[in-house]
Amino acid sequence: MEKMRVYLAEFIGAMMLVGIGTGVVVFVGTQAGPLPIALAFGLALAAGIYAVGGISGGHFNPAVSLAMAINKRLSWTDFVGYIAAQFLGAIAGSGIIAGFFAAFGAKQDAIQQIGFGQTVYQAPVSFWGATLIEVFLTFVFILVIVMVTSNKYSAGNMTPLIIGLTLAALIMLGISATGASLNPARSFGPALLSMFYGSSQALSQMGVYLIGPFVGGALAAFVAKFLGSEEA
Amino acid sequence: MEKMRVYLAEFIGAMMLVGIGTGVVVFVGTQAGPLPIALAFGLALAAGIYAVGGISGGHFNPAVSLAMAINKRLSWTDFVGYIAAQFLGAIAGSGIIAGFFAAFGAKQDAIQQIGFGQTVYQAPVSFWGATLIEVFLTFVFILVIVMVTSNKYSAGNMTPLIIGLTLAALIMLGISATGASLNPARSFGPALLSMFYGSSQALSQMGVYLIGPFVGGALAAFVAKFLGSEEA
Amino acid sequence: MEKMRVYLAEFIGAMMLVGIGTGVVVFVGTQAGPLPIALAFGLALAAGIYAVGGISGGHFNPAVSLAMAINKRLSWTDFVGYIAAQFLGAIAGSGIIAGFFAAFGAKQDAIQQIGFGQTVYQAPVSFWGATLIEVFLTFVFILVIVMVTSNKYSAGNMTPLIIGLTLAALIMLGISATGASLNPARSFGPALLSMFYGSSQALSQMGVYLIGPFVGGALAAFVAKFLGSEEA
Amino acid sequence: MEKMRVYLAEFIGAMMLVGIGTGVVVFVGTQAGPLPIALAFGLALAAGIYAVGGISGGHFNPAVSLAMAINKRLSWTDFVGYIAAQFLGAIAGSGIIAGFFAAFGAKQDAIQQIGFGQTVYQAPVSFWGATLIEVFLTFVFILVIVMVTSNKYSAGNMTPLIIGLTLAALIMLGISATGASLNPARSFGPALLSMFYGSSQALSQMGVYLIGPFVGGALAAFVAKFLGSEEA
Repeated sequence: MEKMRVYLAEFIGAMMLVGIGTGVVVFVGTQAGPLPIALAFGLALAAGIYAVGGISGGHFNPAVSLAMAINKRLSWTDFVGYIAAQFLGAIAGSGIIAGFFAAFGAKQDAIQQIGFGQTVYQAPVSFWGATLIEVFLTFVFILVIVMVTSNKYSAGNMTPLIIGLTLAALIMLGISATGASLNPARSFGPALLSMFYGSSQALSQMGVYLIGPFVGGALAAFVAKFLGSEEA
Repeated sequence: MEKMRVYLAEFIGAMMLVGIGTGVVVFVGTQAGPLPIALAFGLALAAGIYAVGGISGGHFNPAVSLAMAINKRLSWTDFVGYIAAQFLGAIAGSGIIAGFFAAFGAKQDAIQQIGFGQTVYQAPVSFWGATLIEVFLTFVFILVIVMVTSNKYSAGNMTPLIIGLTLAALIMLGISATGASLNPARSFGPALLSMFYGSSQALSQMGVYLIGPFVGGALAAFVAKFLGSEEA
Repeated sequence: MEKMRVYLAEFIGAMMLVGIGTGVVVFVGTQAGPLPIALAFGLALAAGIYAVGGISGGHFNPAVSLAMAINKRLSWTDFVGYIAAQFLGAIAGSGIIAGFFAAFGAKQDAIQQIGFGQTVYQAPVSFWGATLIEVFLTFVFILVIVMVTSNKYSAGNMTPLIIGLTLAALIMLGISATGASLNPARSFGPALLSMFYGSSQALSQMGVYLIGPFVGGALAAFVAKFLGSEEA
Repeated sequence: MEKMRVYLAEFIGAMMLVGIGTGVVVFVGTQAGPLPIALAFGLALAAGIYAVGGISGGHFNPAVSLAMAINKRLSWTDFVGYIAAQFLGAIAGSGIIAGFFAAFGAKQDAIQQIGFGQTVYQAPVSFWGATLIEVFLTFVFILVIVMVTSNKYSAGNMTPLIIGLTLAALIMLGISATGASLNPARSFGPALLSMFYGSSQALSQMGVYLIGPFVGGALAAFVAKFLGSEEA
């Protein structure tokens, strides 16, 4: 029962993050600058952590769970359950966007063109260039997370908000380069749904959005530990 | 006396939410993106809860009161009083906008065209498409509310702000689909006023903005309870 | 000594509010929507209250001081000192903007055209229309302030931020009608400076920005008291 | 070991501030208004202080460290180490932007034209005009910092956020005049990198961004002390 709550919490959080964040990518876009998208992701993340973080810790992101597992705040058994719940939640979030398309009566080719807010990079950005950018963005993001959720450097009840606002700032920085995923599940959900509607580019580029966030998250775990995040 | 304060608190909060939020819809609009509208509603809600939430709980929304009644945090007798105060407050909020129009010396046909920030959906969005979108938006909104206002998962003095910012994120997502009401009173006030100025579309579509938020709020109450919101 | 600190605190706060807020009115404007101006005023106010609110209470606004005096949180003797410091601070804030103009080597006629971010209303808005709008905006603003700074309903260390964000939301609502002053000192500083550069409209309209905020603030004091703001 | 952590903390914070802030200057710009840049700097600063402020105090800015040294919260020996770490971190932050350019395969002349978000002033703004503006902006910024980080007037766990949001408001005010540095390290990193790509203007103007922030910071230290920041 308790475990089911935990996985449901991660599912709901990932669904909120992807549903709200990519929804604003799709239905608002960047015409008025990057702030609406950045704040949609950031505030959805903060809201999710405030709502269900007390149950599961509020990762909603396999790279965060990896960092927590590396620093022994999450067992490797739970790690598997967490990322399964996160991927399912992200797919559900993109399913919500598909539901919005259905409500608008959008046709397949229109949906394919608008997309699901999937993360892609375009030439001249290369595979490794995109990967390194995701490494950097996720390193900063998860360094902040591991520190502010530690006992020693806890931000108290500001913790979820600052995590969300950090994501917002990093999305503004990286959105024009790689789409600023920082989260394998956030990239996978929209990539999968967009493939169903005939656009396989995002799924074929998933390597960047797996390697980048996982490497960035692992680096962040080590640096945070050096900075004392796991001390009493 | 104490009850009068409680209902006055709900009246004031709904008046602030509708007056400020729909006022920005009317006088600012979405030319510079959805953020001004989203933040106007979100910050007005947060301000209202900080100001009078200590008196009434700060619902300002019949769907929130329904969720609280389902989870036994509000008696069904109070529920009736709450939603009466909320509807009256929302009407007063739209009355404020009518007052702004009067200050500008706006004529009836100009007012009819500008409107009161009422929530409407347009073809190709159908009744049930719009209703389901409102169900989803309100479900997420009230799930966050029920969790962060619970004893077990309380966000402390961040609670009102995070509720407001969650509303802001959800409005950015849903505004182009249904106007993103999430609140029967918020839809009713502007719909009633706009009818007085000769536009009955919003009032005729109230079904969406009653069923959607109430169903979403009820679902949120159940899911939050499963997640432990009502445990000690 | 202690009194000098108190008045210096009010001077600095009013200088920050007017310097930063009207500076963004002058040098940024509303081309990208009302958010930059609204947040400049709101965050400057929050920053000022966090910085020096522990010394003076952080009013920076004669209408706030009036409400505090009515509810006996400020003596009427101090009230006089407070508003003197606030008016001087606001004039200093507009002096800062004059300094920016000097740094840019702006000529008198250019300065007159750009202005100092003074608050004005234009036909068809009438004197009483503008006054009533200022009454409403200030009523909501100061109702929130009196409640969240009370012992009974204190927002803790969120108090200054929520006061600032409430101002931001209300500025978005009222900026196109009256300039959204809510503060006689905020209107007077720029009006005085703009008169020195040959534009007397704002100073001649000061009645609106005195009556409106003072009446709104007084009403807020009474309603807050009814709601229990002065109870233990 | 402990000292290494402290300097690493200042290095990371300055890297985050410059990397994220100037990155948004470079890749987003002001087309949609000043808010994205202002919030990128402000939220990056807040995130950095929440993450590593518990280790070093979270200055990330030689002018802040000067103010802290003047008020005896930092030894003059540490002051040297702090500013070395801050300058290195800022250079690293600009190196990150160079890395983004590399990922995009940008050519030297394109990079020179886009720049690194370096701070410059242009005629008709003069050296002393620009310096005085930086003095004012930094005075306000560091006055807020010294007050809210004091024992007497502490903002608790809101402290880092309010520091970041204060920076955001001040950047909106000063960005069109001087680029709104308020931080010698923030100006030096991009100036150095842009010189490597053939643009020496920013480096030749560093005097403004050294004198301005240091003078403003020193003034703020004295005023804050007068206001009681160093009392028990």
